[in-house]
Amino acid sequence: MSGEAPRIILLAHGSSDERWCRTFEALATPTLESVPGARIAYMELAEPSLDTVISEGSSEGIRRYTVVPLFLAAGRHLRKDVPAMIEDLQTQHDVSITLAPPIGENPELGKAIRDVVIHELETHKQPA
Amino acid sequence: MSGEAPRIILLAHGSSDERWCRTFEALATPTLESVPGARIAYMELAEPSLDTVISEGSSEGIRRYTVVPLFLAAGRHLRKDVPAMIEDLQTQHDVSITLAPPIGENPELGKAIRDVVIHELETHKQPA
Repeated sequence: MSGEAPRIILLAHGSSDERWCRTFEALATPTLESVPGARIAYMELAEPSLDTVISEGSSEGIRRYTVVPLFLAAGRHLRKDVPAMIEDLQTQHDVSITLAPPIGENPELGKAIRDVVIHELETHKQPA
Repeated sequence: MSGEAPRIILLAHGSSDERWCRTFEALATPTLESVPGARIAYMELAEPSLDTVISEGSSEGIRRYTVVPLFLAAGRHLRKDVPAMIEDLQTQHDVSITLAPPIGENPELGKAIRDVVIHELETHKQPA
């Protein structure tokens, strides 16, 4: 196995609502622009699926992946459904896939939320 | 109506899973520590509810609130359920409640996600 960085896959839940997916694409954009090879994938209800993204990577010869969930917290999906999906994909494509914690478990997110709220307050400030 | 800042309420979905709620409390902490009077509330399945937090504020004489959804994108809950809930609470408590966009619609979140991913890559880097 080479020392190359794994391919990053930002995993969003997915929705049949186009607006919902657009928001996640916007959220993913700074990462996709900064991290070579990074992709977005959806767990369900939208394309590309995780299977599609791993299949494409596999055909390019990429053997290592890190899935970073665009979820604020881990519920049933991240504790059960996604690990099962990853196990199947590893076997099917003979690749190694690491599941990172959901982004919301990183303290940086809490600080970003604080900055957003303070900005929100500035925007809606009313004259005394 | 005074020129005082509205009370900020960080609104999370809520879950019967304690671990899920703990993650949101951690996410809210930098805001709760920086913004005087700010509170966290849950839409369902956990306490304090939005009703509880508005009732408490109302009894303290707080008349203006800004609800900041701790959601990455707006789905049915933020497009329908929460606005309906807010309309009822405004009438019931004779207060003014503004619903801010979900935090995930703010570009700062996308940048924070990029930083988390880059950190993730550093952590899992393997020797060449």
